[in-house]
Amino acid sequence: MSGLPIYRTAIEPEWIDYNGHVRDAYYGLIVSYAVDSLMDRIGLDARYRKQSGCTLYTVEMHTHFLREVGAKDTVEVRVRVLGADPKRIHAALELACDGREETAATCEVMLVHVRQTPTVRTTPFPEQVAAAIAALRRATEALPPSGPPSRRMELISR
Amino acid sequence: MSGLPIYRTAIEPEWIDYNGHVRDAYYGLIVSYAVDSLMDRIGLDARYRKQSGCTLYTVEMHTHFLREVGAKDTVEVRVRVLGADPKRIHAALELACDGREETAATCEVMLVHVRQTPTVRTTPFPEQVAAAIAALRRATEALPPSGPPSRRMELISR
Repeated sequence: MSGLPIYRTAIEPEWIDYNGHVRDAYYGLIVSYAVDSLMDRIGLDARYRKQSGCTLYTVEMHTHFLREVGAKDTVEVRVRVLGADPKRIHAALELACDGREETAATCEVMLVHVRQTPTVRTTPFPEQVAAAIAALRRATEALPPSGPPSRRMELISR
Repeated sequence: MSGLPIYRTAIEPEWIDYNGHVRDAYYGLIVSYAVDSLMDRIGLDARYRKQSGCTLYTVEMHTHFLREVGAKDTVEVRVRVLGADPKRIHAALELACDGREETAATCEVMLVHVRQTPTVRTTPFPEQVAAAIAALRRATEALPPSGPPSRRMELISR
C-alpha cells in the first residue's frame, strides 16, 4: 500500500451482504469516512464548515474491488493527492486489511470546495488549506500506486 | 433518464451527512440494491445463488454525482446493459428523484459471475441467464445516456 495512512475501521455487521463479505457500496463508505478524515487533516473540519458555510462535495468516485473484505477484518486507508487546483482535489485512496499484503481496493475521487449558501457555488480553498493540500501532494503524488487507476470502462468482446 | 426502471427507494435518515444531503457512498448503496434487483430480473436471484453456489461480484464502479439528493426524495434507478460476455456484464445505471427532471447521478459497474466454492472462480452464466442479459442489452444498449460515462479522472491545471 502506498500513501499517507489517513483512516482505520473495523467492519460493521450490516456491511456484510449475501455473498458473505463487505458489500461493494460499503467500500465506498469507508472511502467516504477516509475523506472526512482527510478534510480534518487539511483544515476543512466541522468547525471550519460551520464558520465558513463551505465544505467539500464529491463529484466523481471510481473504485476497483480487488479482494474480499470479511466481517473480522480491520481496514486501513492510505491517501495520495494526485492533483489539486484552487478549488479541487484529485485524490487516490487504497484500502488494505490488517495482516494481509494485497490491496483490497483502489479508489479515486474528485472533490470540489463549495460554499453552500445562499446557493451552492464552487469557491477557492482558504490559503492555509491550499498550503496543506500542496504539502500533502508534494509528499504523496510520486508514490507508486498499488493497484489500477481510474479508467474508461469497457468490455472487449473475446 | 434513460434505460429500464429497475429499482426505487425512499431515503433512509442515516444516509444524510453533515452536508445536509445523501452521503456519496449511499448513492453507491442505492446502485448496489439496484444491481440486486437486476440480478433477480435476469435469474441470478437468491434461489439460484443458493442452488448453484454462484453469484455476481462487482469488480469496478464509477459514479458521477450530479445533483444533491435530499431526505424527502424518492430515487428511481434505470439500467442499461452496455456490454456482456459469457461471464461479465457492463451496466450503466442512472439515478433521478421523483418530480425532478435532472439526473442525480450516473454510474457504471463491471460485474463478474463467479462460483464461490471451493475457491472463488469466474464461471460462465447459465444459458437462460445469458439469454436474459442479451435481451436486456438489445433493449437498452442504444439508448442515449443522460449524463457522463466512466473515464480516466484527471485534473487539468488551469
